[in-house]
Amino acid sequence: MTTEHPYSYKYLLDINTPSDLRAIPESELKEVCSEVREFLVDTITKVGGHFGAGLGTVELTVALHYVFDTPKDKIVIDTGHQAYPHKILTGRRDSLHTIRQKDGLSGFLKRTESDYDVFGAGHATTSISAALGVATARDINNEDYNVIAVIGDGAMTGGLAYEAMNNCGVQKRNMIVVLNDNNMSIAPNVWALSNYFTDIFTTPTAQKLRKNIWELTGQFDELGDRIRKTVSRLEGGLKAVITPGMLFEALGFKYYGPINGHNINQLVKTFQSLKEMKGPILLHVTTQKGKGYAPAESDKQFLHAIGKVDKITGKSLAKAPVIVQPPTYQKVFGEAMVELCKENPKVVGITAAMPDGTGLDILAKTYPDKVIDVGIAEGHAVTFAAGMATEGIVPVCAIYSSFLQRAFDHIVHDCAIQHLHVVFALDRAGLVGADGPTHHGVLDFAYLRIIQGMTVMAPKDEQELRDMLYSSVYNYTHGPVAIRYPRGNAVGVPTSQMKSIPLGKGEILRNGEHVAIVAIGKMVQFSLEAAELLEKEGVSVEVVNARFVKPLDTELINDLCQRFDKIITVEDGQIQGGFGSAVVEYISSTIYNNKVSVLMHGIPDIFVEHGTQEELWADLQLDAKGISEVVREYINLSTSVLV
Amino acid sequence: MTTEHPYSYKYLLDINTPSDLRAIPESELKEVCSEVREFLVDTITKVGGHFGAGLGTVELTVALHYVFDTPKDKIVIDTGHQAYPHKILTGRRDSLHTIRQKDGLSGFLKRTESDYDVFGAGHATTSISAALGVATARDINNEDYNVIAVIGDGAMTGGLAYEAMNNCGVQKRNMIVVLNDNNMSIAPNVWALSNYFTDIFTTPTAQKLRKNIWELTGQFDELGDRIRKTVSRLEGGLKAVITPGMLFEALGFKYYGPINGHNINQLVKTFQSLKEMKGPILLHVTTQKGKGYAPAESDKQFLHAIGKVDKITGKSLAKAPVIVQPPTYQKVFGEAMVELCKENPKVVGITAAMPDGTGLDILAKTYPDKVIDVGIAEGHAVTFAAGMATEGIVPVCAIYSSFLQRAFDHIVHDCAIQHLHVVFALDRAGLVGADGPTHHGVLDFAYLRIIQGMTVMAPKDEQELRDMLYSSVYNYTHGPVAIRYPRGNAVGVPTSQMKSIPLGKGEILRNGEHVAIVAIGKMVQFSLEAAELLEKEGVSVEVVNARFVKPLDTELINDLCQRFDKIITVEDGQIQGGFGSAVVEYISSTIYNNKVSVLMHGIPDIFVEHGTQEELWADLQLDAKGISEVVREYINLSTSVLV
Repeated sequence: MTTEHPYSYKYLLDINTPSDLRAIPESELKEVCSEVREFLVDTITKVGGHFGAGLGTVELTVALHYVFDTPKDKIVIDTGHQAYPHKILTGRRDSLHTIRQKDGLSGFLKRTESDYDVFGAGHATTSISAALGVATARDINNEDYNVIAVIGDGAMTGGLAYEAMNNCGVQKRNMIVVLNDNNMSIAPNVWALSNYFTDIFTTPTAQKLRKNIWELTGQFDELGDRIRKTVSRLEGGLKAVITPGMLFEALGFKYYGPINGHNINQLVKTFQSLKEMKGPILLHVTTQKGKGYAPAESDKQFLHAIGKVDKITGKSLAKAPVIVQPPTYQKVFGEAMVELCKENPKVVGITAAMPDGTGLDILAKTYPDKVIDVGIAEGHAVTFAAGMATEGIVPVCAIYSSFLQRAFDHIVHDCAIQHLHVVFALDRAGLVGADGPTHHGVLDFAYLRIIQGMTVMAPKDEQELRDMLYSSVYNYTHGPVAIRYPRGNAVGVPTSQMKSIPLGKGEILRNGEHVAIVAIGKMVQFSLEAAELLEKEGVSVEVVNARFVKPLDTELINDLCQRFDKIITVEDGQIQGGFGSAVVEYISSTIYNNKVSVLMHGIPDIFVEHGTQEELWADLQLDAKGISEVVREYINLSTSVLV
Repeated sequence: MTTEHPYSYKYLLDINTPSDLRAIPESELKEVCSEVREFLVDTITKVGGHFGAGLGTVELTVALHYVFDTPKDKIVIDTGHQAYPHKILTGRRDSLHTIRQKDGLSGFLKRTESDYDVFGAGHATTSISAALGVATARDINNEDYNVIAVIGDGAMTGGLAYEAMNNCGVQKRNMIVVLNDNNMSIAPNVWALSNYFTDIFTTPTAQKLRKNIWELTGQFDELGDRIRKTVSRLEGGLKAVITPGMLFEALGFKYYGPINGHNINQLVKTFQSLKEMKGPILLHVTTQKGKGYAPAESDKQFLHAIGKVDKITGKSLAKAPVIVQPPTYQKVFGEAMVELCKENPKVVGITAAMPDGTGLDILAKTYPDKVIDVGIAEGHAVTFAAGMATEGIVPVCAIYSSFLQRAFDHIVHDCAIQHLHVVFALDRAGLVGADGPTHHGVLDFAYLRIIQGMTVMAPKDEQELRDMLYSSVYNYTHGPVAIRYPRGNAVGVPTSQMKSIPLGKGEILRNGEHVAIVAIGKMVQFSLEAAELLEKEGVSVEVVNARFVKPLDTELINDLCQRFDKIITVEDGQIQGGFGSAVVEYISSTIYNNKVSVLMHGIPDIFVEHGTQEELWADLQLDAKGISEVVREYINLSTSVLV
């Protein structure tokens, strides 16, 4: 697919909006597709990003913008991993190289970025709901345009897709859902229907069945009129059986396909027909993730998202690290799970389509039966875990912090009310970096600590993650327990046997005289470094590792309140309702209320954009330097200035 | 169905556990069913409760406990409205008359109430997930028992059911899902598949089609061996087309049914067969809500849940109110929506299966097109609304507070991040009464105020609800807006034209000298009454109606801080992270931190059980008397005692 002269684009550099695309003769669209793919490969191998999904949707995206009158017609694209070609064709070609970088393009769709981004999405499965909303608004406003949702099969395990499809079937508005089926969600084999899809087309029986049916119907002629009529009536039904449309037709969709999603001319022709049709329509398109780029085709999992790679070989161009990096929290978690499962047959890991991302793939390699991947279905993951807990199993749900928001009620209603012992390992907590606002796990302290009887904590380093996990499995068994920890490298401390941490007990890491920092999780290490910086200026800072947001170590806080007039809480989460808020709530109920001032340092009431973690921490004064600045200002300030 | 001698039970009074039931000859089960139904009618017409669903599941419940070895075999029942017969048969017959009353039986399933309640549930759609969890635990523990989930068709619009079914199809564990299809969720016509079910059995074409297929297959004999083989292969497929099992078979279930859910002998026979089968099985049972009780059969919506009624006529036995009651908040909301929709074509009401409960039925009567009921699908309701908002529609999502927990991420990810103007009318906020812990809407201030850019408020009376709704539609258009208000009667103030309330502005309702109460929502009226009580003792209490949790009226709080040393916040929600927490967070950041003490009064870190609202408010010192006691204690106390 790559050309000999990568930059000799015939069309692409003149396509600044989809109107430009629509001016190109249909016969040339194949060339356009090659150029989009070439541009994508060339750019993303240089700067990194989500990759395989976009390569699979080149033809689909070209066809959609060619046939439909965007942005008047509205295309709602799910999740955004598949949307890089869409960005290239909608005025963002020349800034594609900034993708996922600070102040650059978002890795996902974003309404503020383009009029062609109808609905932003970082979490999967929202497109059909949102598109139905757009179609409903169109009808209420008496307007006339097409609405198309594009959703990958990976998102089809999510209940929201079903709720939306069901509602489409009831509302019967004109709308097209394109199922982009690359038979490959982020992790494979979690959608029952995909097995059905695969089976029906690949098993010899099914192939033969299909052939036989048509032969059979051909032979009915001799049986006379009555039978012919019956067969004609049967045909709709038969079609549903021998195509994979059962689910969709049952839900009220007209089902078409599957068609080859890399045949641009067939796609264009199909969309031209569907455009004129009424009611909810589902077009099933089969595509190949990584299509047209050999290294991606051969290792799809790896090339889901990439860093900078060599364009020809696909090998990483990351510089060899000068120093040995500490292990990631994900690796530490995965390995700790192996240890726990080795000694305790009751422990099970649950993931919602993220075995690799969470580190549970490490457990799966040793104990495949100990990892259950439910697909993109966070709600089910949690209620399923609660069901297991009723029978004495200790489920450890490893779910990204921001994705677990999808299961808030399931934690409250299915786990906490029933005091069921489910352990939550909230990965990607705090600021995640390049994925941006949809993925930052900054609400977790707040949304978890309000749940009655919940235990909520965050480790300062990899050994503490191990200890917290151990304690969660063996000691904090009175209800749901959450451990939240960040994306990326741990601190680099030596690890040892896992041991218990007393419930609700923090620790003083460094004594000081002038001010106390009470930090939690990732922020503990930065706070220690900040204290070092401040010490050089003669400021003596006590540093406490809070460990627990709930139950709070009130004894330790009392001690601090006796010794300090100023306390600063530091967290990489939203201030409102968060960790600092819990500390302030507590102190306000004590005699120390009128003695001690507390500064809550964390993320203010804003959505933080994307950038590297380091950039974001620096921006928000959450790295060592930033924390030291905040402390310095705090202790020097007359508090009157704070109002 | 009712007997001449209602109390001459032959079997029922000796059935104290399902073992007793299993000792009765199968031929007598019809009599047992009659007795269960009689007992249910007799008890619930006397004390009130959810009714229609239970009448529909008498035979199903008897059959399940007869065939399966409960509690060793595990029956997970969805939601619990349908579980009254289950309670009767599992040792709770003699306490059924206490149902939904304080210290009495729960209206739902509850693990602490009985070993036969495998999984508690007040929110719909959790049973398949939980049952799969139980089945998985069974397999991990190398145990051998049956796991059955019973789910109503009303719950089948919920995405969690789909996520769970999909995962059943992938995991392939031995498990039975009983679809209790009464073709009647709480509100009808929201499940696309139910239309499909209905159509396929009732349309003449479908009936004829079915007949013709069998005639057709009969005639194939003459066509020789090849065709016969083809037909045999076709049969599985044909069966799927001509039964409503498409959805379930596509998801990997073996589908059986539909069978008549009131034929006890057929049910027993069917369960006896299914018990021996492997893999995920779905049994489709059709039942009639209200079966066997004429008043319930003829008005199913009314008899979803009842108060005390005359057993023969079904007419309410509620005493005629001596004084005219103020309108309910639900009625006020519904009528205000009519006014708004009259003047503004952009306003639309959205409900998730609760048109009557929320008052949107009032709007639907005047403007049927202005109410969209998406079924039990809160996540979709919100993302769908966000989609509408992108096109300038102003969707007002009326969803019970505790149910909206299901859509937490949809508010964050689909509305707030994109600053989309979606209005949330959170009905049933605070303590709801008889429905108990799963339904109390006590987390909403906390889980909503942490969302970046959200507006969160609660009205003190019906006119303020009208004004807040008006302001939400016309003035607070920068992002999502939530208004939360309680179940039941409003205050009884005269209502007038809707008008704007300045964003983030509270109001002083009563001046005082000694202490200030800052109350919100329902608690404002009680606080005013508490102030009256305290005035008689010479305590002068200022009462503020906060109106907004976010943005907080910081100007007003500053004013209070200047004039008072003691402030008490009062809310009918959880203290942690809630309204008072927001006030404390703010004050802690000001110069008033060291001057003012704040007592946060609300619900502590517990799940509140069921009881009448009045009983619960009294228990938690949240009624006028209780608040006055808390204030009295607070101002008399040396704060040192508070630690």
